[in-house]
Amino acid sequence: MADRPVKELSWKTPLEVAHKPAMDKIAKTGICGIMDVIAPGIPPGSDTATLALLGYDAVKVYSGRGAFEAIGSGIDVLPGDVALRCNFATVDDEFVVLDRRAGRIANEDASKLAESLQKIKPTGSSVKIVFKNTVQHRAALLLRGPKLSTAVGDSDPEKVGEKVLEIKALDNSLEAKRTAEILNDLLQKFHKILQEHPINEKRVKHGLLPANAILCRGAGTVPNIKPLSEVYGVNAACVSAVSLIKGVCKVAGMKLVDVNGATGTPQTDFMAKAKAAVQTLKTNDFVLLHVKAPDVPSHDGNVKQKIAVIEKIDQMLGYLLEKVDLNETYLAVTADHTTSSLTRNHEGDPVPIAITGPYIRCDDVTEFGERTCAKGGLNRIRGIDLMPILMNLIGKTRKFGA
Amino acid sequence: MADRPVKELSWKTPLEVAHKPAMDKIAKTGICGIMDVIAPGIPPGSDTATLALLGYDAVKVYSGRGAFEAIGSGIDVLPGDVALRCNFATVDDEFVVLDRRAGRIANEDASKLAESLQKIKPTGSSVKIVFKNTVQHRAALLLRGPKLSTAVGDSDPEKVGEKVLEIKALDNSLEAKRTAEILNDLLQKFHKILQEHPINEKRVKHGLLPANAILCRGAGTVPNIKPLSEVYGVNAACVSAVSLIKGVCKVAGMKLVDVNGATGTPQTDFMAKAKAAVQTLKTNDFVLLHVKAPDVPSHDGNVKQKIAVIEKIDQMLGYLLEKVDLNETYLAVTADHTTSSLTRNHEGDPVPIAITGPYIRCDDVTEFGERTCAKGGLNRIRGIDLMPILMNLIGKTRKFGA
Repeated sequence: MADRPVKELSWKTPLEVAHKPAMDKIAKTGICGIMDVIAPGIPPGSDTATLALLGYDAVKVYSGRGAFEAIGSGIDVLPGDVALRCNFATVDDEFVVLDRRAGRIANEDASKLAESLQKIKPTGSSVKIVFKNTVQHRAALLLRGPKLSTAVGDSDPEKVGEKVLEIKALDNSLEAKRTAEILNDLLQKFHKILQEHPINEKRVKHGLLPANAILCRGAGTVPNIKPLSEVYGVNAACVSAVSLIKGVCKVAGMKLVDVNGATGTPQTDFMAKAKAAVQTLKTNDFVLLHVKAPDVPSHDGNVKQKIAVIEKIDQMLGYLLEKVDLNETYLAVTADHTTSSLTRNHEGDPVPIAITGPYIRCDDVTEFGERTCAKGGLNRIRGIDLMPILMNLIGKTRKFGA
Repeated sequence: MADRPVKELSWKTPLEVAHKPAMDKIAKTGICGIMDVIAPGIPPGSDTATLALLGYDAVKVYSGRGAFEAIGSGIDVLPGDVALRCNFATVDDEFVVLDRRAGRIANEDASKLAESLQKIKPTGSSVKIVFKNTVQHRAALLLRGPKLSTAVGDSDPEKVGEKVLEIKALDNSLEAKRTAEILNDLLQKFHKILQEHPINEKRVKHGLLPANAILCRGAGTVPNIKPLSEVYGVNAACVSAVSLIKGVCKVAGMKLVDVNGATGTPQTDFMAKAKAAVQTLKTNDFVLLHVKAPDVPSHDGNVKQKIAVIEKIDQMLGYLLEKVDLNETYLAVTADHTTSSLTRNHEGDPVPIAITGPYIRCDDVTEFGERTCAKGGLNRIRGIDLMPILMNLIGKTRKFGA
């Protein structure tokens, strides 16, 4: 949601330009600030950002993206398993990436393709695999077996026009070499199957990009963290369509709420998510309502769509303001990172934050935005501080000392 | 540059009183804040401050001033060497310090005196020495040999009217005792030679203070840090006349740019430095333009000269604003520490900071100053955060997570 000033918006940000009466009301009735989700200048990933926003020291506990992605997609990840985030992608005959998201392939096509990859076995190894697609081009791959390592590189070059990378061992251990070999073998086999798959033949006929390769990155394993119920003694739940976020929340011991129509895209059913959040709040102390939508147009450099998505989020927040009793509930609005619609990357600029609720030290900020919030009563905080701040407001932090 | 409010300036600071259109323009078109260079309330040294401003954790990596001073003065410091910052000073017959800077002795005199100290050997030891003067009263002394230690005290009492200190071992190791003995022996020998030196006889005849003693402090060795090229993948360079700063920058892997007329004094050639910085920027991603000048009148309690120096720095910045394309370059102005012209010491009050450039979240601060900047969009940051913030703006920080 957060951005840098955009030239075509007369040097305002999409958030500053958007019509957002609900966010402004939250800012006006609440306390505002800016937040370095990880640390000043450091561009957060969505996983490390969510860990930080849930109060964990991401720098210490982060164990790679893959496990979150797999857990969030419903795969059971055990200690020792190695999981990777995957993309369905389009490559040419020389393995040069033409599209990292296979034209943001629809869930339906991706599901059928994923099914055909389930039975593949790596040559000469007893390692078992699980491959599961989630939303659009997103998928997770899990390896289970003895002597695996997360110390392996990515096959995803993260740039269009570059060749798919051979996965390399990142240390000298036999485990890392073995894991890299297994992955390279699997990815070759995946390519062969996808290349000849009827779904892809159909896609090409319809002028769509074929999803003829799997790119993978972020090998990881389950991090060792205490659930929120143990840290703060709260029942916590998460409404999100994105498996990476769901994975982080599940590891934090949160209940995952599935919502019909929640897709993680700009076309997601915002109101269905809002309704689910209100419902969930009845039986939980803390609900994280996560909306991926504004990140998509940011990565695509689509400023207009970003503004439109922010306005839809605002309507969603309007519903929350109506349905949630702010005499006994605190409501915080923020972003997990800045994404520049110019660089199309996550950036390390801070995000705005506003918290409203019954006993808040309301400041005089009247608009929610990257710059207005910088004048607020929270000043500049870190992501890791947000959860203690919220838990303190609802009486769930423990006194340190006597 | 930064100061506390001064009574004679109607409780304004020298920076607040100075005519500084360029700094104000940078503040007006940029984002402002205040910065605790090390931590709130902690008076930074120039070396630890520069380490922090270059993004290093000074508290962890600082290994004494001496090595920076020696490296910056062109002495090659190897692991195991012990280097100390030295002052040419004036003492009476009882070794009481009359002037810690020998009347801010001119480079020419200091060079000749330094030459005469080169051949001295410590009694009964194979340790070799290098003694090199830099600017005015400043010099560096290096000891090279086996079994040396940096755990030795200073001989510099840091106060006029006090006796030169005997250098003491700071731990119980044989190495520390040995190093202290060698140093005490050397300083005695230095005193003898200086006392009888024709240059000092000439100085006294001309009514100048004789530089008849060497005070030393800050025994140190080379710190173990990664160069900026490795941390951020940038080519970095430094324009500074001060060996302590040059030493820190060299250790950070920065190119040192020598400028004719740059002296580290209020009489330095400000414009020559500005021109060198603009030129250097053509082949470097990051240039640190360091001006020592305002620190000198601060330590002398000369408020009027401090204001005049700040105004000269402003003219220098005016040149930068003219010559640097701010559509593709970011420009940050700050100080490495507050120096009170009343206490004449470095103080732990935060310094102002302003950053301008193409995609900055410009705030509504219109004047550069210790108090105006406190209302800016950066809020309050730490010195160690500045480099990631700048590197993020030019796309040189790495995403943490996925």
